[in-house]
Amino acid sequence: MKWIESSQNQKIKTWRKCHKKKWRDEYGLYLIEGLHLLEEALKVPSRIQSIIYDEHFQSQKNDWPTDDIEEYCVPSKLFQELSQTESPQGVIAVCKMPNQSVEIEERGRYLLVDGVQDPGNLGTIIRTADACGLEAVFLGRGCADLYNEKVIRAAQGSHFHLSIAAVELSETIRQMKKNNIQVYGTSLNGQGLEYTPRSAHSFALLLGNEGNGVSEELLSLTDVNVKIPIYGAAESLNVAVSAGILLYWLRGFEG
Amino acid sequence: MKWIESSQNQKIKTWRKCHKKKWRDEYGLYLIEGLHLLEEALKVPSRIQSIIYDEHFQSQKNDWPTDDIEEYCVPSKLFQELSQTESPQGVIAVCKMPNQSVEIEERGRYLLVDGVQDPGNLGTIIRTADACGLEAVFLGRGCADLYNEKVIRAAQGSHFHLSIAAVELSETIRQMKKNNIQVYGTSLNGQGLEYTPRSAHSFALLLGNEGNGVSEELLSLTDVNVKIPIYGAAESLNVAVSAGILLYWLRGFEG
Repeated sequence: MKWIESSQNQKIKTWRKCHKKKWRDEYGLYLIEGLHLLEEALKVPSRIQSIIYDEHFQSQKNDWPTDDIEEYCVPSKLFQELSQTESPQGVIAVCKMPNQSVEIEERGRYLLVDGVQDPGNLGTIIRTADACGLEAVFLGRGCADLYNEKVIRAAQGSHFHLSIAAVELSETIRQMKKNNIQVYGTSLNGQGLEYTPRSAHSFALLLGNEGNGVSEELLSLTDVNVKIPIYGAAESLNVAVSAGILLYWLRGFEG
Repeated sequence: MKWIESSQNQKIKTWRKCHKKKWRDEYGLYLIEGLHLLEEALKVPSRIQSIIYDEHFQSQKNDWPTDDIEEYCVPSKLFQELSQTESPQGVIAVCKMPNQSVEIEERGRYLLVDGVQDPGNLGTIIRTADACGLEAVFLGRGCADLYNEKVIRAAQGSHFHLSIAAVELSETIRQMKKNNIQVYGTSLNGQGLEYTPRSAHSFALLLGNEGNGVSEELLSLTDVNVKIPIYGAAESLNVAVSAGILLYWLRGFEG
């Protein structure tokens, strides 16, 4: 464990810059914060570069598999410069962005996300895809940044559970179809779910932007476009709620 | 249309106080903001007391049924004191809280919410209950305030579409059971949805707090407690996503 005192220290400067997407991408690093996220990250220790503790942090951290991870302790004032939460728990990990290339198998369950801008929605969607046991999530243009702190918080550790890749979605859809994976788009002009045969063991679901939905270009590439029936007076559903309804509907309760 | 110039005007003072729950409850009034919400509110014009326009607001407001509604125009500086959004659209409505007593019918679909604290979650849940065509939503102790501006924003107008009442949930559950309405609690110890017979035309679903779930006391009163199966590594689902999956599962695609 090393002690860092100065806010001018080179590491501190680097970590602080990771609050911005530009520098995260430059360094290939991002920050996660709090005990729960750190414990999820520690299940894949190779993804963690360093752990930073507030000088007043107290926990049973001896149990953690931190052999190849650098550990630092910093004064509370410095910790607060790195923290992005209202009630910091005194621990931050610097994580390495994983390799983003994902193989599309012959069979598998996938989620494709076209331009979901709200970080809370994107994080909740990733958490839902994880819960539903999907193989991977593909993010197209216009999505919130995967390593934005609000995306990370809403995903509650799912960043460490499933593969997530930034892609050109039109290419990914073509690849899915080549592998005979049924691609379901979502559209207010789609057919009602109740009339749509599902393909529980192998599917790709395509979700779109909060206001505008999936782009017309992508909708024209899918196998079928569906909509969730609305029985009340609401105009639509939140996109993360839609993700949950559709993913669990498509999957059903299959093994 | 009346012009109000001074921030010391009595009406302005009252409206500004409506940013706080204490005064909303005292006056029985709350604020909604933006064109979309106003248009939803205007479908139930009796719920609107006044409309306040920024001096630079421009729209075809002549089409609106504002006969019995007081209308005011205020300087931009004053409007900003009343606004709670980052990009104000120049229109705010002062709405009257509706009568909160809700009859429980012999048959019906209901949602019961126990202690959902996050305003965004609560609003999204109400929007989802609306989309699914429920009769009413009942809010127990510990929920975010129904008229908190973030709840209103997330609900996207559903406040004007279905009945919502603050209640003592144990009483409501007893009433449901007396009416032979099947009450489904949610619990990580519940039985998997896949093994649970549903009651599509008449049910009450009980959701709980983000961290702690439904209280033990209430879980002991339900007919059956269920859980959504988790196939991946996520520990749980977001409560609003759970609401969507469960409500659409219970309802199915029945008329």
